[in-house]
Amino acid sequence: MKSIEDLVSILTKLPGIGRKSALRIAYALLRSDISFSEALAESILMLRKTVRFCSECGSYAETDICQICLDNSRDRSIICVVEQPQDVFTIETSREYRGLYHVLGGLLSPLEGIGPESLSINKLIQRIHNSFSTSVPIQEIIIATNPTVEGDTTALYLKKLFEKELVSVTRLATGIPVGGDLEYADKLTLARSFRGRAPL
Amino acid sequence: MKSIEDLVSILTKLPGIGRKSALRIAYALLRSDISFSEALAESILMLRKTVRFCSECGSYAETDICQICLDNSRDRSIICVVEQPQDVFTIETSREYRGLYHVLGGLLSPLEGIGPESLSINKLIQRIHNSFSTSVPIQEIIIATNPTVEGDTTALYLKKLFEKELVSVTRLATGIPVGGDLEYADKLTLARSFRGRAPL
Repeated sequence: MKSIEDLVSILTKLPGIGRKSALRIAYALLRSDISFSEALAESILMLRKTVRFCSECGSYAETDICQICLDNSRDRSIICVVEQPQDVFTIETSREYRGLYHVLGGLLSPLEGIGPESLSINKLIQRIHNSFSTSVPIQEIIIATNPTVEGDTTALYLKKLFEKELVSVTRLATGIPVGGDLEYADKLTLARSFRGRAPL
Repeated sequence: MKSIEDLVSILTKLPGIGRKSALRIAYALLRSDISFSEALAESILMLRKTVRFCSECGSYAETDICQICLDNSRDRSIICVVEQPQDVFTIETSREYRGLYHVLGGLLSPLEGIGPESLSINKLIQRIHNSFSTSVPIQEIIIATNPTVEGDTTALYLKKLFEKELVSVTRLATGIPVGGDLEYADKLTLARSFRGRAPL
């Protein structure tokens, strides 16, 4: 049926939704009250209408500056550098970090032609410079890119760049996940967990 | 962020979508072009606007009578009785069956207070009677309810009912799935596959 097939072909473009899941969703919409479909459609449109990028850190915001950048209780001497806006929400769920963020909007990838000029790096340097004329200069940059080839390349590039600015540059620890099992850790993770071992 | 949380809370009401999948979908919508979100919202609304129930068989239709009921190349002497409209599409994918359908709209369940009057059974009896005055009277009713307690109860009830109408009543075979393994078949399936054994 055309309207089912149309919806299925759009839904399967979303991450994690195959043809079977898309059909289940279409049938669920047909079974449920029409107000549910209306609320879903409205909510999808609202998302794109209200969410923009924070003009300071590049994360998602519903105002010009995001709630984290506006929050004066946060530690303005630390910036955590992430690849994508959603990484900010992921890190926030840990409730461990109380500093600010900066979203790169990607990772360096010479193979795909993504160089430093494609990422929001100049803006970050500017933020660091601006902070030096405030009462809370930036003292630490935590690089939170994924431990992948591109994430590692980007981290090393940023380290060289920011060390010139006399801020300390750190990176999230790589190792065996909490609750994980040595037996199931891959050899690269194991090797890194040895190199990154810490005194008890 | 409110608009992300709003969408996530609606998405998680859909089958097979948990909080993590809903967040992935929300972020994918934010990353993709706004026209994609618009197409998705439009397609969801179109689905409910265009899909109705076939006034003949009760399956989904975009016109008053569905394409299968209208299709004169189909065998009008057989009706396959299913629980829900989507079962029609599932059976159609097998390309094995060329007769008509009838959607019950549920299964008998005395515990949940669902009796024969809640299902589209009178309409089916009427279809059978009507067919007797045409050149192609209905000769066989294939019951394709799931092999569950409710599906079995409903099948037995319908069998008694339709045998009075002098049509033959059959049911889909239950047994080990093609490509399945005896070792992993549950004992009820195995028992049924013995009872339903057929000459080679």
